[in-house]
Amino acid sequence: MKNVYIAGAAVHPFGKHRDMSAADLGISAAAALLADTGVAPEAVQAGFVGSVYGGSLVAQRILQRVGVSGQPVFTVENACASGGSAVHLAWQGVAAGVYDCVLVVGVENLSAFGGGTLPLTTADIEIDQGVVMPATYAMRAQRYLSETGATVADLTNVAVKNRGNGARNSRAHLRAAVTAEQVEQSRPIADPLHLFHCCPNSDGAAAVLLCSEDFARELGRPTARVAASVVRSGQFHTSFRDMTWPDITARAAEAAYAMSGITPADLDLVELHDAFAIAEFLHTEALGLAERGKAYRAVANGEFAVDGRVAVSPSGGLLSRGHPVGATGVSQLAESYWQLIGAAGDLQVPGAQVALTHTTGGGIFGVDNGACSVHILTAEA
Amino acid sequence: MKNVYIAGAAVHPFGKHRDMSAADLGISAAAALLADTGVAPEAVQAGFVGSVYGGSLVAQRILQRVGVSGQPVFTVENACASGGSAVHLAWQGVAAGVYDCVLVVGVENLSAFGGGTLPLTTADIEIDQGVVMPATYAMRAQRYLSETGATVADLTNVAVKNRGNGARNSRAHLRAAVTAEQVEQSRPIADPLHLFHCCPNSDGAAAVLLCSEDFARELGRPTARVAASVVRSGQFHTSFRDMTWPDITARAAEAAYAMSGITPADLDLVELHDAFAIAEFLHTEALGLAERGKAYRAVANGEFAVDGRVAVSPSGGLLSRGHPVGATGVSQLAESYWQLIGAAGDLQVPGAQVALTHTTGGGIFGVDNGACSVHILTAEA
Repeated sequence: MKNVYIAGAAVHPFGKHRDMSAADLGISAAAALLADTGVAPEAVQAGFVGSVYGGSLVAQRILQRVGVSGQPVFTVENACASGGSAVHLAWQGVAAGVYDCVLVVGVENLSAFGGGTLPLTTADIEIDQGVVMPATYAMRAQRYLSETGATVADLTNVAVKNRGNGARNSRAHLRAAVTAEQVEQSRPIADPLHLFHCCPNSDGAAAVLLCSEDFARELGRPTARVAASVVRSGQFHTSFRDMTWPDITARAAEAAYAMSGITPADLDLVELHDAFAIAEFLHTEALGLAERGKAYRAVANGEFAVDGRVAVSPSGGLLSRGHPVGATGVSQLAESYWQLIGAAGDLQVPGAQVALTHTTGGGIFGVDNGACSVHILTAEA
Repeated sequence: MKNVYIAGAAVHPFGKHRDMSAADLGISAAAALLADTGVAPEAVQAGFVGSVYGGSLVAQRILQRVGVSGQPVFTVENACASGGSAVHLAWQGVAAGVYDCVLVVGVENLSAFGGGTLPLTTADIEIDQGVVMPATYAMRAQRYLSETGATVADLTNVAVKNRGNGARNSRAHLRAAVTAEQVEQSRPIADPLHLFHCCPNSDGAAAVLLCSEDFARELGRPTARVAASVVRSGQFHTSFRDMTWPDITARAAEAAYAMSGITPADLDLVELHDAFAIAEFLHTEALGLAERGKAYRAVANGEFAVDGRVAVSPSGGLLSRGHPVGATGVSQLAESYWQLIGAAGDLQVPGAQVALTHTTGGGIFGVDNGACSVHILTAEA
C-alpha cells in the first residue's frame, strides 16, 4: 500500500442554509478546494461523496459542476459515518495505486427536511416506539452517570468546553460560548440531556483532496499524511449489550492504532463525534484517551482542553460546529489537516503533530450498530 | 493489481415482493449465496451494497442478519449503476490486496414507492417538465429511427427477443414470451414506446462473492475471473449533445477493453442495460458490437440471439428480468457467472468463455449524465 496525503481542504460553513440545495453546498466546498489548491478538475481522477439525504446522483450533481466530469464518481452512505466512509474508499483507491488524486466531498442539507430529530428510517420498531437519537444517548447518559458517579455538571463541562472552542471557529454553526448555567437552563430534550448537550441539525459541506506522494510533491502544497484509515460496522446482538462501551469505536481505533503504529499517548488532538455531550465520555474511553469510567474527570481537569493533554474537538466538535451528517466526517479531516499544517489560526493546538478523527453512525437499532470511521493523520516533517 | 474472481452468486427472483422490505430481499440473496458457497460469514472481510432507495444503513440491515457483523460495510449509490458500482469498489479492494473475500449485494424494493415512473429526484427542472425516463428514451428512439431508417418493428424485435430469453429464466419478473403483435398492441407509454418496449419496475436482490486467487483456490468452487471493472460518470454539457450516441458507455467500454485486452469480437455474451428497447441499439453500438446506426439490423438478423454472433441479454435483460435498480448490475454479474461456469441451464450460451455486463444510470438531466459500469468476465480454463 502506498502513502496517502491530504493536500488541501475546504468547508462551506455549517449552519442553516435554506436557500441552498445539498448539491449547492457541495459545489461551494469543492470549488473552493480546487481554487485554493490550484488543482485542475481534469487532474482529479475520481470523486467520492458522502451523504445520507443528498439524493440519487448527488456526487455527479456536485462534481460535474466543478469540472470533475466523466471520471468515476460514487455516493457513499454509512449514516453519520458517511463522510468518513467516503474518505476511506478514496484512501483505499490512492493507497492501492489506482488513483493519484481523488476529491472527497461530504454534504448534507437537513433544513430540506424541516426541524426535529431525523429518524434514519421508519423501518425500525425502536424508532416507532420513540427511541430516536436523543433518547438513545439519554439512556446511555443515565447509565454512565449511574455507573461512574459523574453528574449532569460533567455533561455540561463537555458542552461548555466545545462551545468555547467553536466560538473561535468561523465555520461553526453555533459560535457563541455558553456558561454552565446557560447549558442547564436550556430546554430539556431527553433527561438528562438539555438542548445544549445536543448538537444542532445543520446544513453544510466539506471537501478534502487525497493524493499520492508523487502528486503531492508535484503540487508543492502543505500536506498531512493519512497514517490510518479504518471503517467498521456494528455487531448484531439480540442479547445484553453494554450501553456505556461503544465497542464499534474500540474496534475501529484498535485497527487504526495497529495500522499506524501510533498509540493514544501520541495524539495531540482528536476530532470526536460528540453528537451529544455524553458521547465525549463514551468515545474518548473507547479510543483509549481515558480509563473506562474516568473520562468525565479528564474533562473536568482540563485534560481535553486545547492546551491540555490531548485537545478533544478543538474545532468545537459537533456540539458547536453542528452536524450536517454526511459532511461531518470530511470536515473533521479538514479541521485536522489545518491543525497539522499549522493553519488553524485561533483554533491552533500548539505543536500539533498527530490527529485522530472519529465518526460513528446509527446506533438506534441496538447500542452500537451502524458504522464507525477512524482516521489518524500525521504532520509531515 | 491482483486477479479477482467471482466464486459464487445468488439472486432473489425479481418481481413484485410487496411483503418484503429491501433488507428482506437482500438478506434472502446474501444468505442463499453463503449457504450455496459454504463460506462462513466470518470469512467475509467487507461488504458493499448497491441501492438507490434502500435507505440509510441498508448494507448493515442486510449483512448483519447473515452474520457479516462488524466488518467494514458500505452502501453505494450511482442510480441504475449502483450495483455495478458496488461491485467495482469491492473489486478494487480485492485487486489492491486489501481484502481476500468480499460480499456484494444489490437490492431494491420499488413496490414500496407505488407504481409509475420513479423520478431520481424532483430537483431537476427537466423532471418537473415531464422528462422522466420513458420520455427521455422515447426521444432517443424517435431520433434513432429518424437517423437510421429503423422502424418501430425493429424496437419490437428487441422486446420479442429478450422476453423470449427471459421466458426460460426462473429469476425473471416477466416470464411470458410475447409476439410482435402483443408488443405493439400493449398500451402506449411515450411515442414510439409501448409498454412492452419498457422494463417493469421490480423488486429483487442479487449477490456475488468476489475473492482473491488464494481464497478461490482454497474454496475450490467454480470461478470466473473479473478481467475488467470500470465505472465512469457522465460529462456535463450545456450545448448540443448527440442523442443517439451514449458517450458514457463508449468511454467505459473503451477503458474495459484496454484493461482486459479483450475486444468486442471476443465477447460470447453481453448482459446489457436494456431499460427500454431502444437502449439495446444505442448501447450495443457504443460497446462496438455493431456499426453505428446498424444495431437494429443485427437484431433483425439474429446476430444478438442466444445462438447468434454474440448473445445480448440471454437472461432476458431488464425488459424481461425487470429492473430493481440497485440489484440490476449485480444480477448481471450473477447471470454471467453462471454462463461462464456452464451452469446457466436453459439459458446457456453454448461455449461461453467471455462475458460483458453493462449498466448505465441517470440520463435525465442531459443525455448521458449519471454513471455507467462495465465489467468483463472470463471463464477459467
